[in-house]
Amino acid sequence: MSTRRVPTAAEWAFARDARVGRLATVAANGSPRVVPFCFAVLNDGELVVVSVIDDKPKGVGDRDLARVRNIGANPHVAFVVDTYAEDWSQLRFVQMCGVAAIIEPGDPIHEAAVAVLRAKYPQYRTMAIDHRPVIVIRAIRASSWRGDGNPFG
Amino acid sequence: MSTRRVPTAAEWAFARDARVGRLATVAANGSPRVVPFCFAVLNDGELVVVSVIDDKPKGVGDRDLARVRNIGANPHVAFVVDTYAEDWSQLRFVQMCGVAAIIEPGDPIHEAAVAVLRAKYPQYRTMAIDHRPVIVIRAIRASSWRGDGNPFG
Repeated sequence: MSTRRVPTAAEWAFARDARVGRLATVAANGSPRVVPFCFAVLNDGELVVVSVIDDKPKGVGDRDLARVRNIGANPHVAFVVDTYAEDWSQLRFVQMCGVAAIIEPGDPIHEAAVAVLRAKYPQYRTMAIDHRPVIVIRAIRASSWRGDGNPFG
Repeated sequence: MSTRRVPTAAEWAFARDARVGRLATVAANGSPRVVPFCFAVLNDGELVVVSVIDDKPKGVGDRDLARVRNIGANPHVAFVVDTYAEDWSQLRFVQMCGVAAIIEPGDPIHEAAVAVLRAKYPQYRTMAIDHRPVIVIRAIRASSWRGDGNPFG
């Protein structure tokens, strides 16, 4: 796996096209958590990743969600996008690490985040995500790997 | 999402059937890493999860792999298995958290770990994973979630 550095165009394209990633955060006690997440890429001077705390049934209030609580305690996050295949020469992944913040409606980039999420996910067009907190991940560094041993590009 | 507790039979079955999970570890500086991983479930008095540091091309030596280095610094890990579907009522995930160790060939459960990994993944039958380090995750607690709002079972 390559060393972490500014993502390449190929790594951004792979991430941008992924329908789901898996987001890791770290709890205050130092143990990790990881959950699937939907996300989009937004150009805000730098390329950033945005994900909404949507209103899929959760069973707990937003502020009690582990990922929200964890980001408050430790803003360092990582996520991975990958393809699995039984032919392991076809395996691919891009891991991105960055610094996360939770923003609320009214924040300068909240509206743009909602727009890119709705452009990528039709499911969001009928959900009131414009009223929901958004996770923004900045200062993204990447590493990547291919099962055939070639560089990711 | 449900609180972490001893996994249910349904959660173990979902994990056991998954061909790939995503494993989160925490670096010494407190930032998370997350990568796809192949794994199997082994009954060692308790149910444990095993994964081999296999010889897919990595570009770095075993001991330099972030997941190995991180587990040495902080044994707390988490992984998630999930299904993604564009019908979000079909979304499912099981997150498992536990304590990891790296074991070497000769360790009492290394042989059993290699056997369950080869039973699950034919790809491993022609790879010399019996000579490779294995990650063993114990003391597993789970949380789970379904997109239709029903309990996971």
